[in-house]
Amino acid sequence: MALDRLIEAIAKKQNPTVAGLDPKLDYIPGDIKEKAFRQYGKTLDGAAAAILEFNKGIIDALCPIVPAVKPQCAYYEMYGWQGMKALHDTIAYAREKELFVITDGKRNDIGSTMQAYAAAHLGKTEVAGETAAAFGGDALTVNGYLGSDGILPLLDVCRAEDKGIFVLVKTSNRSSDEIQNQALEGGEPLYETMGQYCEEWGEALPGKYGYSGVGAVVGATWPAQLGELRGMLSKTFFLVPGYGAQGGGAEDAAPAFEQNGLGAVVNASRSILCAWQKQNTAPEDYAKAAAKEAEKMRDAILTKIGRIRL
Amino acid sequence: MALDRLIEAIAKKQNPTVAGLDPKLDYIPGDIKEKAFRQYGKTLDGAAAAILEFNKGIIDALCPIVPAVKPQCAYYEMYGWQGMKALHDTIAYAREKELFVITDGKRNDIGSTMQAYAAAHLGKTEVAGETAAAFGGDALTVNGYLGSDGILPLLDVCRAEDKGIFVLVKTSNRSSDEIQNQALEGGEPLYETMGQYCEEWGEALPGKYGYSGVGAVVGATWPAQLGELRGMLSKTFFLVPGYGAQGGGAEDAAPAFEQNGLGAVVNASRSILCAWQKQNTAPEDYAKAAAKEAEKMRDAILTKIGRIRL
Repeated sequence: MALDRLIEAIAKKQNPTVAGLDPKLDYIPGDIKEKAFRQYGKTLDGAAAAILEFNKGIIDALCPIVPAVKPQCAYYEMYGWQGMKALHDTIAYAREKELFVITDGKRNDIGSTMQAYAAAHLGKTEVAGETAAAFGGDALTVNGYLGSDGILPLLDVCRAEDKGIFVLVKTSNRSSDEIQNQALEGGEPLYETMGQYCEEWGEALPGKYGYSGVGAVVGATWPAQLGELRGMLSKTFFLVPGYGAQGGGAEDAAPAFEQNGLGAVVNASRSILCAWQKQNTAPEDYAKAAAKEAEKMRDAILTKIGRIRL
Repeated sequence: MALDRLIEAIAKKQNPTVAGLDPKLDYIPGDIKEKAFRQYGKTLDGAAAAILEFNKGIIDALCPIVPAVKPQCAYYEMYGWQGMKALHDTIAYAREKELFVITDGKRNDIGSTMQAYAAAHLGKTEVAGETAAAFGGDALTVNGYLGSDGILPLLDVCRAEDKGIFVLVKTSNRSSDEIQNQALEGGEPLYETMGQYCEEWGEALPGKYGYSGVGAVVGATWPAQLGELRGMLSKTFFLVPGYGAQGGGAEDAAPAFEQNGLGAVVNASRSILCAWQKQNTAPEDYAKAAAKEAEKMRDAILTKIGRIRL
């Protein structure tokens, strides 16, 4: 199952982190933008071209270091279909470089509509007997508020195409308690129920390292809940946002991991993409600065969790 | 606020329904597909071209009848960026015909990422001082599982651009009870809490007919809950899926409405788009068949709720 490929890449690179590709124009060096705007104007096409060139530089620099990248759909969608083409091309480029791609779309719907999202991001789209991969990631983040009708349509595609999903369980933001921490009749918070559904849904996609193809998103900003859920959800691999710019550190992310260093992949986006601005690096060295920051993050987490063993 | 525009269109056309534009290739007459495939091949481009032509025919036929259309993003996204271009062009065409466009994306994220979705679907995207509308709908469906951090970023854009949102509260699918009906400590189901958040979030976007710019999605397949929520959420306009192919009828949708016929807009997708197949109409009359079905749905609901009065 797909998360096996992610887990193997994590062990091989000894790096349980994923680099978020959230390419705001503010993060992109002026030269890249000016070149794109000269060619396409200050337009959605121009922005999309700048984003793609920036991403390729980041991917080239990070691919020896990180096992995975996580493009955030919103930062492509805001540039229209032109941005979505940049998302497609980014995913294709990252996969060429043998990176595992987690498409962060938080998609959700039911039945045949969810099948359409599964085709879009994980499977293949059929057109009159011919097939094509629309976006072609390795895993997709999804929102489980609609229940099993929104998740089961993904599982068949995951099995057939060797892909995975990550379901939002306890998100990194401050107000995640408003809904996710609602206490149920037995006193337990709602996010535990969502977590238990992940275990249940995951039974359809068993993996060889003990983790299913149905992962969970749990924020590094909630270390206590992260540890609680790690103890409770033995077959569920975690995608952990909230590291770096959102305030979580290596010690906050550590409860997501088992003794063998498996169990989670920690995401950072802004701190890596903007490293050149924070380090006062020359803009043309933005990718080198990102690589340095990614190594720093890897080392900080490995110091806490030790060597990763399959 | 934006839902005022929707409400005025509903009253003017005396029609509280919205046509879902979920254009599966199976629904599209052979001639339209063959023409597109001849020009672009059996490719994502070919599929996108067929979808756009089909949609234009549907929009031309429906625009005198329905106040609004609701394109479902998944059915465009599955055809890649080419499909997203067809989504853009469909929205632009529908707005040219003065239809209110509800983009059904069920998007969700937090902070600046949610701002990016707001820009993509409701607002404008800035590119180095120039602005462009990426997709340009009038309202967006969203998922509130992440709490206020996922909703508040939309409200500023809604105010500035005269747009609205619909938050998933109680969805039409059978398994919606798994999460949405979880009983909280006081015994009340979670969807009531989500509904009350809609009322609270809506305070920032008051409207002139008593409904805010923050609507709620409540399925026609749950008439008892629909009536309960209608009584509880006095300022929240409802988007009601589940009519037609999903099993809900006019009597099931009726509890969504107040005495004056306001309070909700009911969606049907498949029953309208496939009407030509169900009615054994000639394929070239698919749009006429859709219009006839839309009129039938309008009349069935109006029979239950009476004349709509502003």
